Amino acid sequence: MLREKTLLFLPGPTPVPPRIQAAMAMPMVNHRGPEFSALHGEIARGLQALFRTREEVYVLPGSGSGGFEAALVNFVPAGARVLAVSIGDFGDRWARAAAALGYRVERLEFPPGTAADPEALRERLRADTGREIRAVLITHNETSTGVTNPLAELAAVVREHGALVLVDSVSGLGAMPLEMDAWGLDVVFTGAQKALMLPPGLTIIAASARAWAAAEEVDQPRYFFDLRPYRRGHRDHSVPYTPALSLLYGLRESLRMIEEQGGVEAAWARHRLLGAMCRAGVKALGLELLCRDERYASGSVTAVKVPPGVDPNGLRRVAREEFGAVLAPGQGKLKDAIFRIGHLGYATPHDVIAAVAAVEMALVRLGHPVPLGRGVAAAQTVWLDHLAAEKGDRT
Amino acid sequence: MLREKTLLFLPGPTPVPPRIQAAMAMPMVNHRGPEFSALHGEIARGLQALFRTREEVYVLPGSGSGGFEAALVNFVPAGARVLAVSIGDFGDRWARAAAALGYRVERLEFPPGTAADPEALRERLRADTGREIRAVLITHNETSTGVTNPLAELAAVVREHGALVLVDSVSGLGAMPLEMDAWGLDVVFTGAQKALMLPPGLTIIAASARAWAAAEEVDQPRYFFDLRPYRRGHRDHSVPYTPALSLLYGLRESLRMIEEQGGVEAAWARHRLLGAMCRAGVKALGLELLCRDERYASGSVTAVKVPPGVDPNGLRRVAREEFGAVLAPGQGKLKDAIFRIGHLGYATPHDVIAAVAAVEMALVRLGHPVPLGRGVAAAQTVWLDHLAAEKGDRT
Repeated sequence: MLREKTLLFLPGPTPVPPRIQAAMAMPMVNHRGPEFSALHGEIARGLQALFRTREEVYVLPGSGSGGFEAALVNFVPAGARVLAVSIGDFGDRWARAAAALGYRVERLEFPPGTAADPEALRERLRADTGREIRAVLITHNETSTGVTNPLAELAAVVREHGALVLVDSVSGLGAMPLEMDAWGLDVVFTGAQKALMLPPGLTIIAASARAWAAAEEVDQPRYFFDLRPYRRGHRDHSVPYTPALSLLYGLRESLRMIEEQGGVEAAWARHRLLGAMCRAGVKALGLELLCRDERYASGSVTAVKVPPGVDPNGLRRVAREEFGAVLAPGQGKLKDAIFRIGHLGYATPHDVIAAVAAVEMALVRLGHPVPLGRGVAAAQTVWLDHLAAEKGDRT
Repeated sequence: MLREKTLLFLPGPTPVPPRIQAAMAMPMVNHRGPEFSALHGEIARGLQALFRTREEVYVLPGSGSGGFEAALVNFVPAGARVLAVSIGDFGDRWARAAAALGYRVERLEFPPGTAADPEALRERLRADTGREIRAVLITHNETSTGVTNPLAELAAVVREHGALVLVDSVSGLGAMPLEMDAWGLDVVFTGAQKALMLPPGLTIIAASARAWAAAEEVDQPRYFFDLRPYRRGHRDHSVPYTPALSLLYGLRESLRMIEEQGGVEAAWARHRLLGAMCRAGVKALGLELLCRDERYASGSVTAVKVPPGVDPNGLRRVAREEFGAVLAPGQGKLKDAIFRIGHLGYATPHDVIAAVAAVEMALVRLGHPVPLGRGVAAAQTVWLDHLAAEKGDRT
């Protein structure tokens, strides 16, 4: 019923606010003309606030996967050794991208559902006595497992070694705390279709002065993702190739929305609440979280173990067909072991309540009875506690 | 947080689907040209299916209140006696509109929360031995109280007398069953901003052959709401004055959506489910419904008595400010006695769950503790029972 009103609980693409859709309907302009300069300038400033950086932030047509490439080819010499820290599928993907680009990839892997251990990273880097590792690849928020890495600590460990810290924050930036400058992150990239609430189609990337210094000696062949022409034109609001204009209109609107609603810190707080509500909700139903350590639980997406005896595809099918709620499957090895609830971007506590209610009903329909309303109540309680803490309890 | 994603639980204007918003963004066309003919023709056919009539249905710029006027001035002679059957605020408004237009208005009123009693109507019309009453004004669905009149029975009673049956179905049509031809309704009108899921701005009206025959002798002064020029031009897709083009694009899309999703009967079934879920939810919280007789409970809107000790404005304020849920107040005498939950148009069962969850949390915040999740569970149970009945229980 009302197929158009299906609830999208994917960890991207996330729902797009009508206000952004309307902004994207603006007519095309000359991307070499004055309107574009104003657009580019406002976006450039807004993104610095979002990345918590004084560096320039560049926007290219692309996606998160484009960020994998851009972060490497601009700042890591051809064939150099890189250490890919992987806590899940997207960590693995970046490692594969690096290998495809000709880098010598070492891997440091952690079991699904856990975060990377700074101590283990320290050991691994200490073993690199020849300082051959030129860059460490870290996933900020692992979308496939719902785990957020302790990025500040990991970056500090890499600093001791001297390699560049390259960060995939596709599903993290704007949702989970990230301080590019304060944490000494060298390259950070994100996409459009996550916390920025846009349709997919952008690679958004920033690099530190140190990364740019290292870039001098980089001989990796590159063209489309070569950031040097973006850097040369940035102050003049000039981009080398045709920009994705509609998405830029949408991005400007997204940045305005985030700013109006309290800035990036308010967005972090909202996602923290959404994650806490979601975890409380599914746990109250007796379901198990993939991420057992609350400290590393993501505010963007929650991965839930499929209970024994329940068909994961059936669960998602019933949720979608009967309750109009689109849940995400597990990825890779976790395909049948978990399902995921995305709660990032254009998401409110009511969305989490709807997701939990849909999971409750889908389980009942599948003959796996759970007490209706119990998960919802747990999520509501987290929301009420949050409000009480925020405003002082009026009751 | 995310003010743009406020949930609108008003009984109009209701949320507008993105698909309709997009359709309304079509460029303007010449309303005397061929594109308009195609648009007008498709709308004319779709509205007949919605009204369940073989009569022509006319669309004018206006609103529900425009329907009050159009239904009277075209079909009831100046100064004639009319009987206004009122079960709430909108019944009263129509009576006042009739008086303002110079008609001699008699009233037949029923207490808020109850439906009109066909037997009482029969008695009143029998007393009109001189057949002076030329029209009986009936509200199909009383938005102010959440009560749906037994329209078929009431119309049959009027038939015995011979007066015209004029029906305000502003919040009924497309949500609650209505059979214009089969029930012998003479004039039926609705608005855009209810079950049709459009922004406000239209009066949509149809009249029976009998009404048109009576119109011959009508001398009431009229201009903008004179339906005769609409009738003359209808087959040629010609309208006398500039039509509200964007809303017509939206209306065409709305009619397509309703048709694609199973037609008007499926829409009735959906609203029946939404009403049943909402009533079960609030009752499970120990709240009292204004409409005590389930047979007449509306599928469009549910009126709930404000519990003793709770400030009705505080309840709606907390729901809006803290939980992003806009509830409707009571109207007129019921202002402080009830609040209303609209669930019509672009509304799904998840919306009802969200409304009930918001009421639960707002009551808790106001120091009127209710068990969190209990109302939600009751609403979920109704949904699950509905699915089980519809598809055969798989559990």
